[in-house]
This record gives sequence, structure tokens and C-alpha cells, in this order.
Amino acid sequence: MRGMIITPRLLHGSSLCLGLGLLAAMPLGAQTTDYTKRINGDSAVAVYPVPYTVPKREEIKAVLDRIKGYTVETTTLKVFDNKTGQEIAAPDMANLNPNAVVDRRYGNLNFWDYTNGVVMSGFSMVAEETGDQSYFDYNVRFYDFTFTWMPYFRALEEKTKKRNDYSRMIQMSALDHCGSITAALIRTQMKHPDPRYRAWIDNVADFISNKQFRFEDGSLARERPQPRSVWTDDFYMGVSFLAQMGKLTGDTQYWDDGVKQITQLSKHLFISEKGLYDHGWSENTAGYDPRFYWGRANGWATMAMCELLSVLPKDFKGRDEVLHLYRQHMRSLIELQDGTGLWHNMLDKSETYLETSASAMFVYGLAKGVNEGWLSPAFGPAAITGWNGVVTRVLPDGRVDGICEGTTYANDNSYYFFRGASANTNFFGSVIYAGAEMMKLVKNPEIQIVPARPDAVNSAIHFRWTKDAATPMR
Amino acid sequence: MRGMIITPRLLHGSSLCLGLGLLAAMPLGAQTTDYTKRINGDSAVAVYPVPYTVPKREEIKAVLDRIKGYTVETTTLKVFDNKTGQEIAAPDMANLNPNAVVDRRYGNLNFWDYTNGVVMSGFSMVAEETGDQSYFDYNVRFYDFTFTWMPYFRALEEKTKKRNDYSRMIQMSALDHCGSITAALIRTQMKHPDPRYRAWIDNVADFISNKQFRFEDGSLARERPQPRSVWTDDFYMGVSFLAQMGKLTGDTQYWDDGVKQITQLSKHLFISEKGLYDHGWSENTAGYDPRFYWGRANGWATMAMCELLSVLPKDFKGRDEVLHLYRQHMRSLIELQDGTGLWHNMLDKSETYLETSASAMFVYGLAKGVNEGWLSPAFGPAAITGWNGVVTRVLPDGRVDGICEGTTYANDNSYYFFRGASANTNFFGSVIYAGAEMMKLVKNPEIQIVPARPDAVNSAIHFRWTKDAATPMR
Amino acid sequence: MRGMIITPRLLHGSSLCLGLGLLAAMPLGAQTTDYTKRINGDSAVAVYPVPYTVPKREEIKAVLDRIKGYTVETTTLKVFDNKTGQEIAAPDMANLNPNAVVDRRYGNLNFWDYTNGVVMSGFSMVAEETGDQSYFDYNVRFYDFTFTWMPYFRALEEKTKKRNDYSRMIQMSALDHCGSITAALIRTQMKHPDPRYRAWIDNVADFISNKQFRFEDGSLARERPQPRSVWTDDFYMGVSFLAQMGKLTGDTQYWDDGVKQITQLSKHLFISEKGLYDHGWSENTAGYDPRFYWGRANGWATMAMCELLSVLPKDFKGRDEVLHLYRQHMRSLIELQDGTGLWHNMLDKSETYLETSASAMFVYGLAKGVNEGWLSPAFGPAAITGWNGVVTRVLPDGRVDGICEGTTYANDNSYYFFRGASANTNFFGSVIYAGAEMMKLVKNPEIQIVPARPDAVNSAIHFRWTKDAATPMR
Repeated sequence: MRGMIITPRLLHGSSLCLGLGLLAAMPLGAQTTDYTKRINGDSAVAVYPVPYTVPKREEIKAVLDRIKGYTVETTTLKVFDNKTGQEIAAPDMANLNPNAVVDRRYGNLNFWDYTNGVVMSGFSMVAEETGDQSYFDYNVRFYDFTFTWMPYFRALEEKTKKRNDYSRMIQMSALDHCGSITAALIRTQMKHPDPRYRAWIDNVADFISNKQFRFEDGSLARERPQPRSVWTDDFYMGVSFLAQMGKLTGDTQYWDDGVKQITQLSKHLFISEKGLYDHGWSENTAGYDPRFYWGRANGWATMAMCELLSVLPKDFKGRDEVLHLYRQHMRSLIELQDGTGLWHNMLDKSETYLETSASAMFVYGLAKGVNEGWLSPAFGPAAITGWNGVVTRVLPDGRVDGICEGTTYANDNSYYFFRGASANTNFFGSVIYAGAEMMKLVKNPEIQIVPARPDAVNSAIHFRWTKDAATPMR
Repeated sequence: MRGMIITPRLLHGSSLCLGLGLLAAMPLGAQTTDYTKRINGDSAVAVYPVPYTVPKREEIKAVLDRIKGYTVETTTLKVFDNKTGQEIAAPDMANLNPNAVVDRRYGNLNFWDYTNGVVMSGFSMVAEETGDQSYFDYNVRFYDFTFTWMPYFRALEEKTKKRNDYSRMIQMSALDHCGSITAALIRTQMKHPDPRYRAWIDNVADFISNKQFRFEDGSLARERPQPRSVWTDDFYMGVSFLAQMGKLTGDTQYWDDGVKQITQLSKHLFISEKGLYDHGWSENTAGYDPRFYWGRANGWATMAMCELLSVLPKDFKGRDEVLHLYRQHMRSLIELQDGTGLWHNMLDKSETYLETSASAMFVYGLAKGVNEGWLSPAFGPAAITGWNGVVTRVLPDGRVDGICEGTTYANDNSYYFFRGASANTNFFGSVIYAGAEMMKLVKNPEIQIVPARPDAVNSAIHFRWTKDAATPMR
Repeated sequence: MRGMIITPRLLHGSSLCLGLGLLAAMPLGAQTTDYTKRINGDSAVAVYPVPYTVPKREEIKAVLDRIKGYTVETTTLKVFDNKTGQEIAAPDMANLNPNAVVDRRYGNLNFWDYTNGVVMSGFSMVAEETGDQSYFDYNVRFYDFTFTWMPYFRALEEKTKKRNDYSRMIQMSALDHCGSITAALIRTQMKHPDPRYRAWIDNVADFISNKQFRFEDGSLARERPQPRSVWTDDFYMGVSFLAQMGKLTGDTQYWDDGVKQITQLSKHLFISEKGLYDHGWSENTAGYDPRFYWGRANGWATMAMCELLSVLPKDFKGRDEVLHLYRQHMRSLIELQDGTGLWHNMLDKSETYLETSASAMFVYGLAKGVNEGWLSPAFGPAAITGWNGVVTRVLPDGRVDGICEGTTYANDNSYYFFRGASANTNFFGSVIYAGAEMMKLVKNPEIQIVPARPDAVNSAIHFRWTKDAATPMR
């Protein structure tokens, strides 16, 4: 192990050690569906490539448990000496080791990263919905690890003047460095208070409210790719935090800011003719910004709007405008959903691959809306088929396949069409969000779910409000 | 034959008895077309997967004769004892047989069903266009069979309190039970009057005008899938009857109601940005109804508008609004037509299969519009290519392949994408409509058809009004 | 060689004689890309089917040189006796040979055709951008040949009363006969004045301004396929000439006419919801004209707008309106670009083949716009990927593959979907335009190009204005 370079490449080379087993390439029916072949048979019966049935609550939980199993196993919460390969058991402030690195053998789950914020917010939701505290306990372990080691790496950075694995905290300079993962921290803090958590939360609140680059009107913005740009990703990177911070503190200025972000950024990014969000907008395109409807960017918008609507009082100023944007978005997404239940990486381009992380975001958005009454029960069946599609992508070992890699805001389709997709990303948190909400949906007493009858020629899944249940439906 | 259960499954098991012969799976070129391969050849000459030529009137008639042959053969107009398998020769009101069933061995053509209304309206049109009375005679035989047996089954239902094969007439409770098939009955009555027909026609008029569920503004509506929904199918289920009833009685209130249905339902269902009809709309989606542009639903709208426009005087109130809807619809349909001449099951989704029944509806709509002068002759070539595409789906035995099975109004793409399609449905009536109108089109003296010249590099099929024929055209 | 019929079919039969070598069918990766397969790999790294890199100026020049090589070789500038197969060395006005024909063995490059106008305008641009006079010299040779032989063929036509290879000049009767190829002639005249050129230029100016069929408002129009139609092709066929004629003469009435054509025709042909041009519009469709977004028609519009904007003073009346149309068009084109960098033959239909000539037109339009500052630098990356896609279609022998054959304005998708495409057309001139502009783009000192970093997970190609270069970008 001497001089071993610990890189993410080792993840699969060493997967046997982890007991994950060998993963044969799975036949994913959803990918090879030829929709054009439905003629010339003697039988006219519908045959679905993914189950056209209502999943049971316990089946959904089992999928989540598989993902949690993978997450727990690969979140080692260890620090190594990258020269010797030896573990460093605890931070010794008097003896700073310049070769200290966080364990990256099995991916990025040990890191302070926005993707892990999504995972842990999802885990909080599962714990709340099911009472299974093992999900919440993970979060506490992660944040304890983080706040145990961060001061050590900060001292190291001051001493060596070199960036290290905690530089994103130490030199916080972007929403990606703080919003999502601190939103999950607030969720943890509210159930498991810790003064270190609270101090960091306040630090982040100051950064987002006072230091992050914004336009003159207060819109969260970035100086790339063009000098003045806005990104749909920042719906989630900013608003997930603002929603929770208002809840934690009772200070409604955070919610005002959240409403402002949704409505102001939407003026640039929401394309009402499409009912979709453009990935990014640059001021210097002067009214002619080319639009790229990247799936996950739309998913960030979906999740951010749900997070905000979840905490806002019904009469909160601007809530109606957020709800109007959210509903238009959900309508378009249902219309663009693939027959497999999944969505394409470029939402309006059916020739692009079906992408899992965004699909899960939309399943969450639809299920949440029906559960909360933001949407008609008519939006329920698409959540069901969406979840059934997402489940086909959860591998036996708990990894989630078909997820688009990290993607910047670009201005050419070639870039977007060919983003890599695999089971080796950290972007699976949305599947946890979706599962938590689906468990609630299939047992929601306000909803009557009429499953498709396999014996009936033209039977579809239907949802109705229970109070209207007397009306017959097929 | 003792105790034989007569079910539709027998149709193909016993097809040899019918002399239909064995049907090998036909290679349907249209399905395997790869549009992306048109490069890298030395030749730049266009090669079409279906003929790019103007069909002859007699060729069209031969296709219709094949379909009529199949229809006549499988419409046995027999009643059986379902326990013994013995035919019941005539209704004996004094001796009601509780096992009496209509012959379903070869499909549903013996039944009182809206699909058969389309077939028989189409047969009336062919008889009128060609003078071939064998088409019209079929209708008379069908309705005589119906009104001979219906009283028997009504007595049986009263006695046994069990629903039977005529319950849709006896307990009429939906537009599907009456509109389409009674529209064809009116066409039959006008040439071959019968007091039983007339009594039933008046019965249906009363049901549609006074008993069918409607919204407060008079719009035809349904209580499913949501408590207050409207369906594009009801354009045809309602208006086909209203148009003919106005013609039969001279009472223009039926036409007023027809115009009202087209215009009021279109406010919910016609999506002008797309120029297409949504399959259904539910009030509780509150302005955010997801849209599903199912082919056949759009076809019902096309046919209903043509049926109404065919009978309305030029100055009839509301005619212009119907014409405006119809023309927008036809424009969009031409734009969405596949290169094979057919249309996709979901009109705006080219990844879904090419569906025959809707395609024929649109061919009818285009040809009718050019024949009547509702459309520019520029709409003619698409009718030609559409018909050529439909013809590839008419099997040697007269069945029509690639037809989507019965389909309810659902709210998820999975349901729609995977509807079964086959040659074993009753939804082939629109092919007869289309054929009748195409025969007229290719001999219309007001139209000059310039066929594509095989020797000319960029020659297309063109239509012009004959009065402009002096202008050169290539 | 006695009695040999010289036809274009000989081109490939005799290609060995030309030293072009045998062309094996090239694997064109772009055509077989399956975008749906991007899942289930262990690696999430983007893999592009065409290079995702910034081409070097000299690489672009090498591609153009290959095309020029093919063009020079097959432009023989010879006249034959079509009975004997003997070359006729020089025009002998006293001895008119009724069998005289222009050499068509290797295609149409010897002819007075609008396609060759595009090639020669492109050659002028390359000469100007690179100083390589061999491009310009070709043009001079072509026009000298033309004006040497045209009087001979005119005398022949007067004598024989039969149309011949110069009838399009002698009996000029359409924009296709004059606009494009005379625009290139003006470019040649401005550097290499010749009284024969100038006389013909004035002749064409008179035809276009006073004789060509126009609507009452002055819009350039055609009497086919319907009696009153306009074609998007005429943007280029008309405006390319008008732009250059204004420059040659200093008479701004030509530019006024150019602006009028762009803005008035766009009222019929530019569909703002799509940001695209319809191929054609016919008055008798009365507001319901079906739209066909054929690639090359849109390319003619792109090129025409660029040609006009290139010569108009910044404050010229109507320039802003042209610029607004152009920018909307460029935005839509970026959005519809395929992942390979190419565009589909029907721009909004991804199931149609990827077409090269239109793709090159759009690359030219994007690169020109960024170079001139008409567009934000954010439009630059799509020009790069577009060029990289086009290059995959340039064969080793200099022919350009995947080009749609000549295409009339039709009204049915079947016609458009199945147009032939090959390497044997004359429509490759737009690749030369594109290359000239791309050479300028990659060395434009006002633009900072940040290439994608192969080692960076989510790195894209970005363009920024140099004056903003201080802002960090990834």
C-alpha cells in the first residue's frame, strides 16, 4: 500500500472487497424498447416494458434500503495518509500531516459536496415517513465526521497554503459549496442540535445572503460561462437552504429571498411555451439565449419549488406565483415523459438517453404535489409509472444506473447529448426523495387509486380524491 | 359443440372455415424505414418506402371491396344457445332462452357498437359515390337483424334481470351506446325507411338531447376518469348523430347543438399552439391539464367536423368557427404526417407506432376538405400519400392491420405508448370513409392533379384548381 | 467515342481517369450514433462521435483545399460535339455546330447554375481570408469560359430555335437563372473588371428589378406550385445579388429592395413560434399554410441575411429588423442542432437524415455572426461542433457527402423525408462559405476560445469576448 494514490478509479477494482459482488451488465429493457413494432400481431393487448402497476409501500422501502445499504458501505468516514496509505485515526492538531486526504476509494460520499446534501435531505425524509432511524443516523455520523476533521484541514491549509479536501468549506465561494449540504445539515440540526452545526449554518446564511454574487435585483448569479449568467441549478443550490433556514429561524426574510429567486430567475429561465427550464441564461445573449432543456437542471427547479412550497404558509406573499410556475412545469413534464416512465436527458429530445436522476426528481415533484394537494389527482398515475421506471435503474448492489455525470452550463447540443451516464455518480439522492414521497402517496387516505385491471381491454391507472369515490370509474 | 363457449378468441382458430386463408406475417416496409440512412450512396434519387403516385379510382375501390368482403363474411347475424352451441333461428317471444347470445366467433361485427356505426356510415358513402348497392344492403341486413332480436333480448333482460348483448340499447346510458351507430341508422332510414328505425332514432335523439350528462353550458361530458371530464371522442359520438338528425328532421336545433359541441368542447380540448386535440380534459386539473395527443381522438374530431360541415348551410351560425378549427387541425396534421403517409399513435411523438385507424380519419378529412373546397388544393398531396400509407395496412383477407385497441382517457404516456395494435379490431370503418372520399378526389373535375414525374429530379405531386390550370407547374 | 452521349452518369464510371481513386463506402459514425445507449457502463466519461475540439486554422484550410481540388478537376471548361465526342476548341461564330454541348461528364460545374454561384462566392471569401489566389483564379476562368461561349450558343439557339445549355442566360426567366451566380460574378468583377461581366450584371439587375414576377408589394414570388407562391429559396436567389449590386454601384435602392425582401417574405415564411422558415407559402392556403422546415431552405435564408448584413451600414433603414429575424433564427438553429453537430433534413424532425449542405450554411451563419459581433460569443461553440460535423462528410477525394438533391416546394412530408442524398450534387458551396468564416473565427482576436479540457469531468467549449477575459471560466 506504500505510495498508493487513492483515486475514484479504485472503486470498481476493489468492489469485491466491499462485498458488492460482480455486476453483470443488466439488460435494461427500457433502453431497447422499439415503440414502432406494435403492429401485425394477432393480439391487440397492451404489453408494457416496465410494470404498469401500483407499487406496494414495502416494495418502495426495499428499494430505498438497497440504496441506503450501498451508501452506508461506501461512506467510510476515514482519513488516510496518501503517501503511506495508512489511516489517520483522529485529527491531531499539533501534528498536521500534509499528506492527509479523505478516503475517495469508493467514490465521493465522504465529501462536503452538494450531491451528498441531496442524499441526506432524502434520508431525513425517509426517516420521517417510515420511522426508520438508521437513515437519520447516517446524517449525524457524516456531519460529526465533517466537523471533527474540518478544523484540522483548515489548519493544514493555513500552514501549507495548499488547497485540500475541505477547501470548499474553508474558502466557500459558490452556492455549490454550501446550499444543498447545509440544507440537509439544518434538517439534522432540527432533530439533533449541535453548536458546531449551528455555527456553520449561520456562516452559510451569511455567505448566501451577503457574499454570493448576485445581480443588482438580488438574483443569484454566476460569472461563468459568460460574465453575467444565471443557472437553473441554483434554484436548488440556493432555495433548498433558504427554505430550511426560514423554518429553523422563523425569520421569513429567507422565504422572501426564496420566493424572489424562484420568480426572478424564472423570468430568464422558464420558457413558458415549453413549460420547461432552460439550463442557463447569459445576459450578453441579449434576448436571444439558446435554450437547452437539460433534465437535471429542470429537476433542481422541481425540487427547489417543492422545498419552498412545503414550508411556506398558504397566504405567503408570492406563493401563488411559485405554485403557478410549478404547476405549468409539472404539466409539461407529464407530457414529455417517456413510455418507460423515465425522462430523456434533454427533455424535449426523444433521441437522447433516458436519465435516472432527473426522472427521480420529477417523480418526487409529481408525488409531492398530489400528496400536498397542489396538483389534481390526475397527476398521480405519471408518478407511478415514473417510479416504476426509476426502479429498473436501481442495481442489485444499491447503485443507481443511467445517471448523467456532472454537467456545466454549455451552449451546444453536442456537449449535452454525449454526457456520460453510469452507476458511478453521487447524483442518486433524488431517488431517495422520490421513494419517500411515493411511500406516502400509495397510502395517502385522501387519494383513491384505481389500479389498471389486467383483464380489461382499455383499463388505465386512475387517481381520484377519496371524497369523490362514489363516481364509478374504469 | 355441446357447452361451447363462444368467444372472440375463436376468430382466428376457425379462420380456415371462413375461407380467409392463413395469414403469414406481412413485411410492412413502412415500419422498418430508417430515415437516417440516406447518405453515402452514389445516387441521389429519392426512393420512397410507399408508392409516391396517384392511385386510380378502381384501385381504391378494389381495396374497399376487400374490406367489405371481410366485413360481410364475419357479420354472420346469427344468435346461438351458448350452452348447446345450436343456432336459434328466430326470436320466439313465448320461449325466451336464457342462454341466447349473439355470435361473437368472428369478432364484434354483429353487435350494436359505435365502431360498427363508422363502418356502416362509410358503406353508405361508398354506395353513394359508386352506386354499388351491395354496401348499402349490408346496412339494411344489420339493422333488420338488430330490430328483429332486440325486443327478444329486452324481454329476456326483464325476465332474468341480467345484462345481455343488447343492454347497451335497452339501458342506453352513454354516447358510446347510441350516437355513431344511430347516425348510420339515419343514413339507412333516409334511403330505406322503416318505422322501427325511426322509433329508435327518436329515442336516441331524446337521450342525447335530454338525458346524457352535460355540463351546465350544455357541453357533452362524462363523469370519468375525474368527476367532471370531457372527451374528444365525443365529438364523433355526439356530432355524427346531431348532423344527420338535423338533416332527417329539418330541425336546425340539432345543428345548433352540433356547432355548440364543436366550439365549446374545443375551448377545453383544442390546443391552438399545437393545432391538435387533447384526448380529454378534467375540470379538477384547474388550468393545468396535461395534454395527450392521441391519434384516434384527433380522428374523431376530424370526422365530426367534416360530418357537421357537410350538412350545414354556408351561412349557418357558427359554421365559420367550426371551419377555422377544422382548418387549423388539418394544417397541423399535414405537418405531423410521417414520411410513410401514416401518422403516429401519439401524433406529436415520432417514437410511437404508426397507427392506421387515425391515419385513415385524417386522409378522409383532407380529401373531404379539398373536394368540398374547404381547403386549398395544396392539401391534396398529403391525402394521396396518406391513402397510399393506409393501403399498406390492408391485409389480403380484408382485415386492416396496425389499429390501436380501445383506449380510455388516461393521464400517463406509458398507457398510450403501449396500447396494443393489431388487425383484430372493429376500428377499420375510417378506412372506408377515406376510400369513398379518395375515389371522389382523384376524379374531381375541379382539381387538376399533377403527378410526380419519375424522370424529374425534384418532381412532387401537386394539386391545383382547374380554373388556374393555365399556369405552368412542375 | 463516336456518337457518345455525354451524360452526368459517366462521372463515376470514369472516376479512375480523373485520378480520384476508388471511394470505398466510408463509415460515417455520425449516422449510426445511438444516443440511447449511454447507460450501464462503469465509466461516466463523455464520448463524442465527432471531435469535441477546436479545429486549427490550417486544418480548416486543408479541408477547403480538398474541395477546391475536386472542383478544379471536374470543371473542365470544355465544349464537345455530342455526336462525335470531339472537343470543340473555340467558338466559331461562322460555323455553328448544332451538336455542341457543354461537358457534363463530371457533373454540372461547367454550367451557369445557381449552385456554382455559391461555390464561387465561397471561393472569393477564401481568397480574401487566406490570400490564396488559386481560389479566385477559378472564378475568373469560369466566367471567361462562360462569356466566351455564351454568344455562340445564343446564335445557335436563334438559328435552331432549340433550347441549349445556355438557355437559362439567353432566356432568363427566373431568379434561379441569375441571382446567385451573378452575385459571384459581381465579386469577381470588383477584383477583376471585365466589360462583358459588367454588361451581364446590368442585364440581371434589370431582370430582377423590373421583370421577375413579384407580388403587388414588391415581394419576389413564383407562379408555382400554386398561382401565387413565395419560396424561402428566393432569399438567397434574390438578396445575394441585391447585396452585392448595392456594393458595386453604391446605389442603395438595391439594399432597400434586399431589406424589403427579407422583411416582407418573412411575414409569410418566418414562423416565430418555431424560429424557422417554412419552405414556401401559397396565397390560396388563406392563413392555413402547412409548414415544412426544410433544412436547405432555412440555409438560404441564413446566408441571404448574412450577405445583406455584411454590406449594410449600421444605421441602414430596416437593418434592425433583419438582425432581429437573423438572431431568432440562429437561436432556434442552435437548439435544433444534432449531437453530431449536423442538422436534420427536416429541421424539426430528428427522424430525418442529417443533411450536409444546410448544416454548412448554419455553421457559416453562426461563425459569421460571432465574428461580426451580431451574436454573443455564446453562439461560438455550436459553430465549432457544426464544423466538426460537416468535416466528417468531406470525402478524401474532395466531394461532400450527405447532400440533399434538388428539392421543389411541396406540401407533403413523404416528398421531403425521402429526398435522395449523396456526394454527387453541386450543393457543396456552403461548405466553402463555412470554412472561410471558420478560419476567421478560430483566430479572431476579439474572441477568447476556451477549449474543453479532456481531463475535466464537465468541461465544455466556451467562447468569451476578449475584453472580458479576466473573468475566470472553466
